[in-house]
Amino acid sequence: MRMSYVGGIHPVEALLRDAPERMRVLLLQRNRRDLRMADLRTLAEQQNVHFEFTDKSRLDRLAGPAHQGAVASCHDLPLCSEREFEDRFEAWPSPQLFLVTDGIQDPRNLGACLRTAAAAGVQAVLLPKRRSAPLNATALKTAAGAAERMTLVEVVNLARRLQWLKRRGVWIIGAQAAQPHTHQRHNWSEADLTGNIAIVVGNEGTGLRRLTRENCDELAAIPMAGEVESLNVAVATGVLLFEAVRQRRGLV
Amino acid sequence: MRMSYVGGIHPVEALLRDAPERMRVLLLQRNRRDLRMADLRTLAEQQNVHFEFTDKSRLDRLAGPAHQGAVASCHDLPLCSEREFEDRFEAWPSPQLFLVTDGIQDPRNLGACLRTAAAAGVQAVLLPKRRSAPLNATALKTAAGAAERMTLVEVVNLARRLQWLKRRGVWIIGAQAAQPHTHQRHNWSEADLTGNIAIVVGNEGTGLRRLTRENCDELAAIPMAGEVESLNVAVATGVLLFEAVRQRRGLV
Repeated sequence: MRMSYVGGIHPVEALLRDAPERMRVLLLQRNRRDLRMADLRTLAEQQNVHFEFTDKSRLDRLAGPAHQGAVASCHDLPLCSEREFEDRFEAWPSPQLFLVTDGIQDPRNLGACLRTAAAAGVQAVLLPKRRSAPLNATALKTAAGAAERMTLVEVVNLARRLQWLKRRGVWIIGAQAAQPHTHQRHNWSEADLTGNIAIVVGNEGTGLRRLTRENCDELAAIPMAGEVESLNVAVATGVLLFEAVRQRRGLV
Repeated sequence: MRMSYVGGIHPVEALLRDAPERMRVLLLQRNRRDLRMADLRTLAEQQNVHFEFTDKSRLDRLAGPAHQGAVASCHDLPLCSEREFEDRFEAWPSPQLFLVTDGIQDPRNLGACLRTAAAAGVQAVLLPKRRSAPLNATALKTAAGAAERMTLVEVVNLARRLQWLKRRGVWIIGAQAAQPHTHQRHNWSEADLTGNIAIVVGNEGTGLRRLTRENCDELAAIPMAGEVESLNVAVATGVLLFEAVRQRRGLV
């Protein structure tokens, strides 16, 4: 895994504010108790970034002597821009398989979705630039290495990107939980998942946003037994993606 | 959800030691700083039990005035003994569907497995009495209410219980991750999941124990793309259980 180190109070503070998802761990010099260090700790806690105390000599070694007691160890995650995604798009072999996560809030759930997507052979994961869990240390740990190997695309306007995919022949399938008494026309295993498809999963509590749902070609319902309201979002992602794997076996 | 309250230093300490999984939250009286309270806190941390500080008046209301500053709020989880499980066994309609968790270590994963099992209509979950994550507050929160509604059986000797199930016509299917280059005879969707079955999932890192694996009638492999080693155990549980749901639809 590629790593980089950023030293100095101001650069570290800027990273914590603007790109906490890139920070794997914040290293703070042991035995320094001044106010600016305390501020960094508070900010790290707010941004859900793990911090550790370590010796000055280690910080010197990682970031040079001008670190002022604070060094951020950062992931160089191969995030893909939307422009790059468009450029690469034609090169992905059919049948294409994409995952879209619409506003997952828990970094563990996001990480588990990435790990599941990699295991199912998903070509790219699209996630909204806002309203998504940070790709922080927790997410990367739960992803068990999958985040670093996948094509991850941060999308500014998800509805517009779904429309772009539809114009290129990708069928958009939104995930829904369904109680047994609800009349559902499309059960998840009745959906045709053999073509070029994008599977869209929503927020843990509220599911797909209205605008996202309206841009789906089809909604696939996973029926729930008993009084269970829904599956964990990573489990639902696994059920849908491996149904696609099952339907595609023998085709590829 | 049924709840009960246990007050007093000694009873709370005994619960923390012997049945921490029953304790939802430990309530400690605010502004009491004596050594016995500190010991309870340390023990709660060791046992992974959440604690909160609250007013004496609330503790009086919940547990009566003899609480000595400590009240445990407990789940009355309907854990089922092995004897009860045997008694109930014949009453479960066919096709039976059981889940066996062989040594899951993370309470969140255990909770997510229980939620998934409930959603798939599993009739009972069997888990080993030792080497299993505690049914603590984290597990119950992740289970989102499913743990309280399911039949959970703590099993002393898992291998012997699997043999017992086999003698009663239950087909035992163990979950395995599989790299694409491995030759696997049984892919998960090729297994016949329509009869009376028990699906067995293993530990997050090490999978099924040897003795458990040897007592399976069949191993179902979930193929992994790329360099992914395995799925999260709750995701694998979902993939297998909902493949069973898919195969059974129209049968019931």
